[in-house]
Amino acid sequence: MAEISLQFPDGNQKQFDENATAKDVAQSIAISLAKKAVAGKLDGKLVDLNAPLKHDGKIEIVTANSEDGLNVLRQSVALLTKVALKQSFPEIEFGEETGDENGFYIDTDKADGQVSADSLPAIADKVQGLINQKLDVKHESVDKAAALKKLAGTKFEAKIVEDSDADAFDFYEIDGVSVLATGVSFDNTGAIKFFKLLSVAGAYFEGKSSNPMLQRIYGTAFFKQADLDADLQARQEARERDHRVIGNDLDLFFVDPKVGAGLPYWMPNGATIRRTIERYIIDKELGDGYEHVYTPVLANLDLYKTSGHWQHYREDMFPPMDMGDGEMLELRPMNCPSHIQVYKHHIRSYRELPLRIAELGMMHRYEKSGALSGLQRVREMTLNDGHTFVALEQVQDEFKKILQLIMDVYKDFNINDYTFRLSYRDPKNTEKYFDDDEMWNRSQSMLKGAMDDLGLDYYEAEGEAAFYGPKLDIQTKTALGNDETMSTIQLDFMLPDQFDLSYVGADGQDHRPVMIHRGIVGTMERFIAYLTEIYKGAFPTWLAPKQVTIIPVSDDKHGAYADELRKQLLKAGVRADVDHRGEKMNYLIRDAQTHKIPYTLVVGDQEVADKAVSVRKYGEQDSATMSADAFEDVVLKDIANYSNN
Amino acid sequence: MAEISLQFPDGNQKQFDENATAKDVAQSIAISLAKKAVAGKLDGKLVDLNAPLKHDGKIEIVTANSEDGLNVLRQSVALLTKVALKQSFPEIEFGEETGDENGFYIDTDKADGQVSADSLPAIADKVQGLINQKLDVKHESVDKAAALKKLAGTKFEAKIVEDSDADAFDFYEIDGVSVLATGVSFDNTGAIKFFKLLSVAGAYFEGKSSNPMLQRIYGTAFFKQADLDADLQARQEARERDHRVIGNDLDLFFVDPKVGAGLPYWMPNGATIRRTIERYIIDKELGDGYEHVYTPVLANLDLYKTSGHWQHYREDMFPPMDMGDGEMLELRPMNCPSHIQVYKHHIRSYRELPLRIAELGMMHRYEKSGALSGLQRVREMTLNDGHTFVALEQVQDEFKKILQLIMDVYKDFNINDYTFRLSYRDPKNTEKYFDDDEMWNRSQSMLKGAMDDLGLDYYEAEGEAAFYGPKLDIQTKTALGNDETMSTIQLDFMLPDQFDLSYVGADGQDHRPVMIHRGIVGTMERFIAYLTEIYKGAFPTWLAPKQVTIIPVSDDKHGAYADELRKQLLKAGVRADVDHRGEKMNYLIRDAQTHKIPYTLVVGDQEVADKAVSVRKYGEQDSATMSADAFEDVVLKDIANYSNN
Repeated sequence: MAEISLQFPDGNQKQFDENATAKDVAQSIAISLAKKAVAGKLDGKLVDLNAPLKHDGKIEIVTANSEDGLNVLRQSVALLTKVALKQSFPEIEFGEETGDENGFYIDTDKADGQVSADSLPAIADKVQGLINQKLDVKHESVDKAAALKKLAGTKFEAKIVEDSDADAFDFYEIDGVSVLATGVSFDNTGAIKFFKLLSVAGAYFEGKSSNPMLQRIYGTAFFKQADLDADLQARQEARERDHRVIGNDLDLFFVDPKVGAGLPYWMPNGATIRRTIERYIIDKELGDGYEHVYTPVLANLDLYKTSGHWQHYREDMFPPMDMGDGEMLELRPMNCPSHIQVYKHHIRSYRELPLRIAELGMMHRYEKSGALSGLQRVREMTLNDGHTFVALEQVQDEFKKILQLIMDVYKDFNINDYTFRLSYRDPKNTEKYFDDDEMWNRSQSMLKGAMDDLGLDYYEAEGEAAFYGPKLDIQTKTALGNDETMSTIQLDFMLPDQFDLSYVGADGQDHRPVMIHRGIVGTMERFIAYLTEIYKGAFPTWLAPKQVTIIPVSDDKHGAYADELRKQLLKAGVRADVDHRGEKMNYLIRDAQTHKIPYTLVVGDQEVADKAVSVRKYGEQDSATMSADAFEDVVLKDIANYSNN
Repeated sequence: MAEISLQFPDGNQKQFDENATAKDVAQSIAISLAKKAVAGKLDGKLVDLNAPLKHDGKIEIVTANSEDGLNVLRQSVALLTKVALKQSFPEIEFGEETGDENGFYIDTDKADGQVSADSLPAIADKVQGLINQKLDVKHESVDKAAALKKLAGTKFEAKIVEDSDADAFDFYEIDGVSVLATGVSFDNTGAIKFFKLLSVAGAYFEGKSSNPMLQRIYGTAFFKQADLDADLQARQEARERDHRVIGNDLDLFFVDPKVGAGLPYWMPNGATIRRTIERYIIDKELGDGYEHVYTPVLANLDLYKTSGHWQHYREDMFPPMDMGDGEMLELRPMNCPSHIQVYKHHIRSYRELPLRIAELGMMHRYEKSGALSGLQRVREMTLNDGHTFVALEQVQDEFKKILQLIMDVYKDFNINDYTFRLSYRDPKNTEKYFDDDEMWNRSQSMLKGAMDDLGLDYYEAEGEAAFYGPKLDIQTKTALGNDETMSTIQLDFMLPDQFDLSYVGADGQDHRPVMIHRGIVGTMERFIAYLTEIYKGAFPTWLAPKQVTIIPVSDDKHGAYADELRKQLLKAGVRADVDHRGEKMNYLIRDAQTHKIPYTLVVGDQEVADKAVSVRKYGEQDSATMSADAFEDVVLKDIANYSNN
């Protein structure tokens, strides 16, 4: 009988019968381990606890107390939910299902309206019933032909198997029902602990909008009730901060997949925030020595062949347009080649360097429709982009200057939680990078030197640099605690070479500049999604779409004074409005709070008599009375200081 | 022998032999007329004076003292130039040639560098020689086969005939040389009076960039020396005002057909002007009750099928992009459907009307590469667009409000020379228009009433309305005296219908709004081309890319003070720079004038001592000395008042 050779995490190697299972392996180590085992992991891939291992490889035993164990738990609930659904609705069709660090989901057809948010409790009861019965879960692995036979007559699962290039397909049988599985399950339903079916949402089969829409059931599971509770609370928190939810509540933007997936429409409120940020960042950059340009979103495809984008980045680009006169036009995926055109338009002298070109550059990137999400993942975006062209010896000073600008901007937006990651080339594989040792060595040490000079903490990542040069990424934490690259400063030795850029040095000779790509706040779309979440929609006064709402106690008696106040504030550049609806005062005040308007002014007899206002700040219970002029000063100072609420 | 029946301009009809020529007809009227005749015009088409007329029709006799006569003169010189070129360079190839109200041109190949600006005087001498000889010009009309035979071996002329769907082709023989003609010539070269070969420029054969580039020789001709002189002076003036020339001199923008025909790159100077105008117009509109939005440049093609653009406007649109997931995306040719999406995103109430949606909306229009020109004719443009949605009874007030806004904006840009054209439907063909008599009647009378109320002069154009509603166009004169539609207010009854727009009226019922398309300054591209020409590049202070240049008498001694001044001005929001080049003062002052910078400050010992500046305004000879603070006030007032230089 054939044997296989398995290597343990500690490096030890051991021979087993080829039909040995992960459970057998666990048993061979310790009986207690076999008891705790929920699955195996062969060469990094989860395998069923009771399936013959068959191959040599590195083996790990997965127990409940691990990330992998949690994934197996979630996959187990997903499969059990399929079984429960199949028992309730024998005709039901399934799409994909998955269990991972985010929870699990199962796609089902919705042809008969069988599955909705309302039906989740009943489905959960049924799943719980199967758990309580402590049923055996029987694993079976079959080849493609056998899998297709088992799935004969299914609409989506047969397609999934058909399209797959795997050799073997897993099925699990529970309570007499066999279901296709893309992950690994416990071997008994009794091992499943705490789970929750969360919600139902539409999802296109295979993420393609040309395919039918399925119903996706979301859920999660944990080994401890406390962990489940904490997760549910975090999800509630996430929902409250979800920029798509807030975006809808505050009427900031919308996306209509029928009109264009991933193509947001900015409603007046969202457009006000965006315009304010755009003007802010342009003025900030102009003040810092940048020259702002406008360059076209379209260019001849040849431009992206020269830059290399077409060769290396094509799957993220839009299809070219044949203009019928020999020209192929392409929507740009990045602005760098455009700014290179600006650089190249004149012969440049060393006296002009550093030359700083900036733009709010609109770009288009192809993303699968299934991957699109609100303002966070879009197909059309406007980047706060900039490129500075420097002599090699100017790299350090320019790098410091850019970094200072980024930190200044963060301060104004009250972004305080960020870290630095400095990426170098891999010193052991220098041949994988743009070939200019002097450039790499000098520039990497200049970047490091700059960070040290500025007294900043940073993480050094060897081998994480781009092909074309070293870089600094600035990582922020989203409201939900996820890491996100907000800003970046990337040196580029390659594009100046591809485009044969030069400047005339003090020596009268041509020299090659270094190009620095830098982003401060990233795309308007993603930045405003981020801000919406960290501010929970309560934008600071300078950004708030409506900064002041004025509520007359009686619209008849005090409406005219309110209008006068509004005029005064508008003239001062404050976005103020009067609520003339004449509803009950408390209702209007509550409504202003719901819309997270920074200042609510109430004006009645006394205020009219004194030319005063009763001011209530967002989120505060108390109000203060002051003269109209004093209030104007308060709000203007608030705006000028970018004060946080 | 067959006879033909000809009708004279006075309505009289007369029979002639079918071989009668325009000359015969003239002769039959008066011998003096026959002497003055240079061509005939049969049914509106110019015909050779000595060619048999052959057909019935309306006949006119063309004499020198007419627009048509001028065209024949210019066509005659064009043909004679072809003859002269052919005699000098027997191998020369010709493309198109034309003579019209703008002068004439002849396209020739440039294979051997035979034709350049330098060779024009020699060619002109040769043409003059042929004129002096008073040579007969012999006309011949042949069918396609014969024409192709005559042109056998030519590269471009054979192609022109091949592609034409005409039955007959004209040739003229002069001095033993026969040339293809697309127009009509005098019958003797002696009739040609004053002409000038103006310039040479590249032009693609048939206007397509995929075709070879030919050399186009431009010229013009007149019957009187004084007219020629006046025209040459006007051309010189036009050259000085040409926004492409100024755009290059002042580094405002560039277009590189290799990177993308009709896709301008706005350099920092041009971008500053554009940004200033964009902010101005947005703020103006926000102050006037508009809500600004950002909407995507791409949309699902279906959107433009619903709007009808795809059916009626397709040849001006870019090719759709197949996204591979069943979606066809289209670059928008207009913003109206986008703003309709914004309207439709909510259920609208009568209380919200008029609802004013505005945007600096980027659009793409397909134009043949041959038709593209600087910023005036481009393929990517950003429109100062706006749509207001109103109840029918609000049309008049909203129309007045828009018109007032337009006139306010004109004032700020110092645009004073404009006229109004009000376009109605054709009362005799109402079935050609959107079918709603009440809408047409009420709205037309509201528009007229508004113009009368405002006491404005206007021209009424019956039958000039669009299919979808009446409109007002505001015509300005370009620097060269051409009429241009700068602004427009167009009512639209159709799109609200196509998109099934509604609002809930005070009666609780659904009603259809009227949509008003309105443009104030048009596209940024065309508006800035226009301003560049009317200002001759000397932009008023508020728009000037650089508003102040500071010249230290000695950079060593006064440079530091100049930098201080600059800082003070920058802080006040003034675009100021110091000229540290250390060249001779007079050279630097002249250079500032060349760059049309509104204010040149010179600072020397006295100014440093007094904290003063010596100020020289653009275009003035004298300078005045004042304190730095006083100058700051002057320039800020200038900016705030949109003062014209």
